[in-house]
Amino acid sequence: MEQKIIHIGADHAGFQLKEHLKKYLQKKGLSVKDWGAYKVVKTDDYPDYAKKVAKAVQKEGLGILVCGSAEGICIAANKIKKIRAVPVWNTKLAKLSRQHNDANILCLSGWQLTRKKAEKIALTWIKTPFSGEARHKRRIQKIRRMEWK
Amino acid sequence: MEQKIIHIGADHAGFQLKEHLKKYLQKKGLSVKDWGAYKVVKTDDYPDYAKKVAKAVQKEGLGILVCGSAEGICIAANKIKKIRAVPVWNTKLAKLSRQHNDANILCLSGWQLTRKKAEKIALTWIKTPFSGEARHKRRIQKIRRMEWK
Repeated sequence: MEQKIIHIGADHAGFQLKEHLKKYLQKKGLSVKDWGAYKVVKTDDYPDYAKKVAKAVQKEGLGILVCGSAEGICIAANKIKKIRAVPVWNTKLAKLSRQHNDANILCLSGWQLTRKKAEKIALTWIKTPFSGEARHKRRIQKIRRMEWK
Repeated sequence: MEQKIIHIGADHAGFQLKEHLKKYLQKKGLSVKDWGAYKVVKTDDYPDYAKKVAKAVQKEGLGILVCGSAEGICIAANKIKKIRAVPVWNTKLAKLSRQHNDANILCLSGWQLTRKKAEKIALTWIKTPFSGEARHKRRIQKIRRMEWK
């Protein structure tokens, strides 16, 4: 697979799945940069990891964030300019979010996804290119103009 | 049920489900303000409805947005200050996103949800209060500080 850097991060609730995905994606030949957590700290806060990964993705590559429900970390990541973060629950949504929204951060639930399911979603998402269609480009441009409003 | 204003909006792909939910929530005694689309226009863009509903929710009440996958409209809404928008697929996530994230916009998929499922998710989400726990408040404060970075 193409050498695309994947920035990865998780809070305490996403830690185990993040560790698993990191090894899985590395085995698939991908370059993975881990932005923490580096151990389970029950009092850590998902926005801190969202910010680190989002800032890295602003510069290059794609991101994967894991928290309990995938919702909080998605809200937080989308607050950063140029970030399009999506919670994904199946491979259909994984494809759509890349093809239509050119999503650059995938948010996964540490509580609701099995490891197998998360592997499949992550790999499908990374492999699917943006369609580049004019209507989708126009909508993404409109999102960019909404930032900081 | 408490008289809480619900701002609702959808693009062409979410139009039918939006129309259905509007009537359903009104029957449940809720006050619903519809920000369009008012008819199916295949070339309309989800960020336009996300912006209208998000700006209304900044001032008062809660919002519901519907597009094809629920992903694009969620990215767009989160670009607006004070908005915490979440795509939701089941009642468990509906509860969690209110209890933990104090989500103020619910994003639903016009392509992947049945009307019955969407009704159940919407009503559960509207009825569930924010837990107000200190750890969740702290995380939401951190999200606020990430806006426009």
